[in-house]
Amino acid sequence: MTDYTKIDTYLEENLDESIAELSRLVAQPSVGAQNLGMRECAALVAGMLKKRGFETRIVDTPGAPVVYGERKGKSDRTLLFYDHYDVQPAEPLELWETPPFAPSLRDGKLYGRGVSDNKGHIAARLLAIDALLAEFGELPGNVKFIIEGEEETSSTNLHPFVRDHLELLKADACIWEFGGVDHREVPIEYLGLRGICYVELSVETAAIDVHSGLGGSIFPNAAWRLVWALNTLKGPDEHIRLPGFYAKVRKPSARDIELMAALPETSEVYQEQYGIKGFIKGLTGGVEMRIEEVFTPTCTICGLTSGYQGPGSKTVQPARASAKVDFRLVPDMDPADVLEQLRAHLDAEGFNDVQIEFLGGEAPARTDPDDPFIELVCNTARDVYGVEMQRIPLSGGSGPNAPFIHDLGLPVASAGLGHPDARGHAPNENVRLDLYVKHARHMARLMVAFAK
Amino acid sequence: MTDYTKIDTYLEENLDESIAELSRLVAQPSVGAQNLGMRECAALVAGMLKKRGFETRIVDTPGAPVVYGERKGKSDRTLLFYDHYDVQPAEPLELWETPPFAPSLRDGKLYGRGVSDNKGHIAARLLAIDALLAEFGELPGNVKFIIEGEEETSSTNLHPFVRDHLELLKADACIWEFGGVDHREVPIEYLGLRGICYVELSVETAAIDVHSGLGGSIFPNAAWRLVWALNTLKGPDEHIRLPGFYAKVRKPSARDIELMAALPETSEVYQEQYGIKGFIKGLTGGVEMRIEEVFTPTCTICGLTSGYQGPGSKTVQPARASAKVDFRLVPDMDPADVLEQLRAHLDAEGFNDVQIEFLGGEAPARTDPDDPFIELVCNTARDVYGVEMQRIPLSGGSGPNAPFIHDLGLPVASAGLGHPDARGHAPNENVRLDLYVKHARHMARLMVAFAK
Repeated sequence: MTDYTKIDTYLEENLDESIAELSRLVAQPSVGAQNLGMRECAALVAGMLKKRGFETRIVDTPGAPVVYGERKGKSDRTLLFYDHYDVQPAEPLELWETPPFAPSLRDGKLYGRGVSDNKGHIAARLLAIDALLAEFGELPGNVKFIIEGEEETSSTNLHPFVRDHLELLKADACIWEFGGVDHREVPIEYLGLRGICYVELSVETAAIDVHSGLGGSIFPNAAWRLVWALNTLKGPDEHIRLPGFYAKVRKPSARDIELMAALPETSEVYQEQYGIKGFIKGLTGGVEMRIEEVFTPTCTICGLTSGYQGPGSKTVQPARASAKVDFRLVPDMDPADVLEQLRAHLDAEGFNDVQIEFLGGEAPARTDPDDPFIELVCNTARDVYGVEMQRIPLSGGSGPNAPFIHDLGLPVASAGLGHPDARGHAPNENVRLDLYVKHARHMARLMVAFAK
Repeated sequence: MTDYTKIDTYLEENLDESIAELSRLVAQPSVGAQNLGMRECAALVAGMLKKRGFETRIVDTPGAPVVYGERKGKSDRTLLFYDHYDVQPAEPLELWETPPFAPSLRDGKLYGRGVSDNKGHIAARLLAIDALLAEFGELPGNVKFIIEGEEETSSTNLHPFVRDHLELLKADACIWEFGGVDHREVPIEYLGLRGICYVELSVETAAIDVHSGLGGSIFPNAAWRLVWALNTLKGPDEHIRLPGFYAKVRKPSARDIELMAALPETSEVYQEQYGIKGFIKGLTGGVEMRIEEVFTPTCTICGLTSGYQGPGSKTVQPARASAKVDFRLVPDMDPADVLEQLRAHLDAEGFNDVQIEFLGGEAPARTDPDDPFIELVCNTARDVYGVEMQRIPLSGGSGPNAPFIHDLGLPVASAGLGHPDARGHAPNENVRLDLYVKHARHMARLMVAFAK
């Protein structure tokens, strides 16, 4: 059994320098939604890889460039890290205690936009590599990095990039960009992500808004058309009415249910955290609710807009109305199916005046909870965290894991340095230095064990 | 029969001075919604009445003051003019060819905010009074003016003002604030207004918006709750489902139908003007559509707002959603009934989480199409316009005529200086000087004939 004393000592001794490197990375804004600093940040990340002896390239896409790097190791086993250098917008700026792009260290945490999501993961993983190189003079196995710049804006160009670079990205397993500990300090291993199909539905019934005294009795009303069309998608029984919608839904396995049953109760946490008074579908908590939370597809109205929305009253019949709607998809659903079903359903229900704009989609994808790589990630975490990793078979969120699982054929495991108060996507995003070091320790152990 | 030659000559000769007076009135902004210049404008209007020997007072209300004026005449018959000095906001300013509060005369029209709605009516009616005073040295009958400052903001304080001043406002008939010619240059006489009940419906399901990957399967969604609640109010069959909603609806009489049948066809005009492709309820035009247009109550969504409404996608489950909804009411419906029915209906349908905020209401009210005063207004218009006035038994819009008809017991007739391109409530509002003079000629004739 490998003795990690020297490696752990290296990580502690080089923490300050690694945090200084992370601070430089965070100080380079890379806000995809605002197209701010993307090329500069890609170059910075590529430089970080080169510094560790990685063969590096920056590949242009129709959007932000992808940074790719690889370094050969002792064995021919290859571990692929998926990360991203883009960050969420920092707004609202006034809620930050220190400026988002001027990283600030206090109370054992580094604050700044992207410090946790996802730049901290890049820096901590490179710190682990530094430790391995210092200890062994080489990497125990091959390591590849794919670091994209569009994760926060739907990874629009990642799927084609992966399909076009199957040979380059060939590996034996993949570590996902995120992860972390829950409120009990137990590290979580997500094994899959739901898919998504995001659309904007819109109706236009006139060229201009009409006085409601005139149009109310005889003109079509875009807002009413939208409400009625939406109502055909799902009623208060929460059943999604698109014909064929549930056809490819795979029920959770006995093993999934076992893993879901092992998770902590969250109903009170949710009620406190979000101020909700109760749950839908008669749910009250327990394993039944946890399974429903991730193993059922959804149809969510994310936004509605039409006509007059200011203070007081304005008597207007709106010419236009639109809704943002997302469908979260479980294995083995396909966003392309949902788009087709949606069009067919709206037409069949008499709403061919409702336009559908496709705003993005991801297929759902998951790795077997008992895949040997998942076991390995858990086993290598044990002596770092002192507790068993908690495997969650499916996350409610979505991300671009499908091309890694289905096109590259890799097992994908999440392990990371997040914590419940890390505030990803929000002001005062932060990373805890203790978890930063733990993640580096975990990744060093994983790279050693995986190469064997 | 009175010879109006001298009166008509007076009106022509004093037109420039009257337009100069109107321009000063328009140059004084009086935007109720922005509480801009209300007291100053009330004082200006009171001064215009005083100048004509009216006993004038400015009466405070919880909102904008009401200007009242009366002048005794030769006979004891009393004609009451209802006008308003407040105007709509001038925004969007960039669409005005000349500034809204710097009246500009070109091509036989005066442009400016409020020049038609309603300041031009005040000035033209006072010009008629000037002509009568010049011709006869006195008014033929008593004239009263009630000029409010909240017409554009639901006349919130007018109903109680009328109820509290029944003796002061006592009269034999009332001329309404607006009117004008249609696209054929035929003067229109509206004999009634629909009522209105304007509400905001809102739902709150959480304290904050929730990531849709988390909340979609198990949390209540405010936007869905709102959509489902709205859908219970009215479906695509256009039938309003509040129990009792239609109970007090009075069907149009044979005389109403006769008057509606005499109106010009508008279906093509509507389709061109508003860019609509067709009508609801299978309507295609004709008298059937014209009757439906005004003699049926409505439930109109005027606005919808919830969650994310920006470009692209944001995966959020909204905590709040709201809709602006107006109900147009026909005789003998009552806005208070509708409010009660709405609450009871939403509760019965399982939507007691939907809050109702009442934003304003007016009862419907109308004058008999064959009332002698209506006849008189028509008869006195004939030699001014050269064609018969077209009586329209009910307008689709709403206004505060109910207290005049029901509390004061007056016949109310509309006659005015508007035209189809007058752009009330819109940029480049204007009044045609030829119609301005015609309205003054009509009102002079009416005051003479009415006093007899």
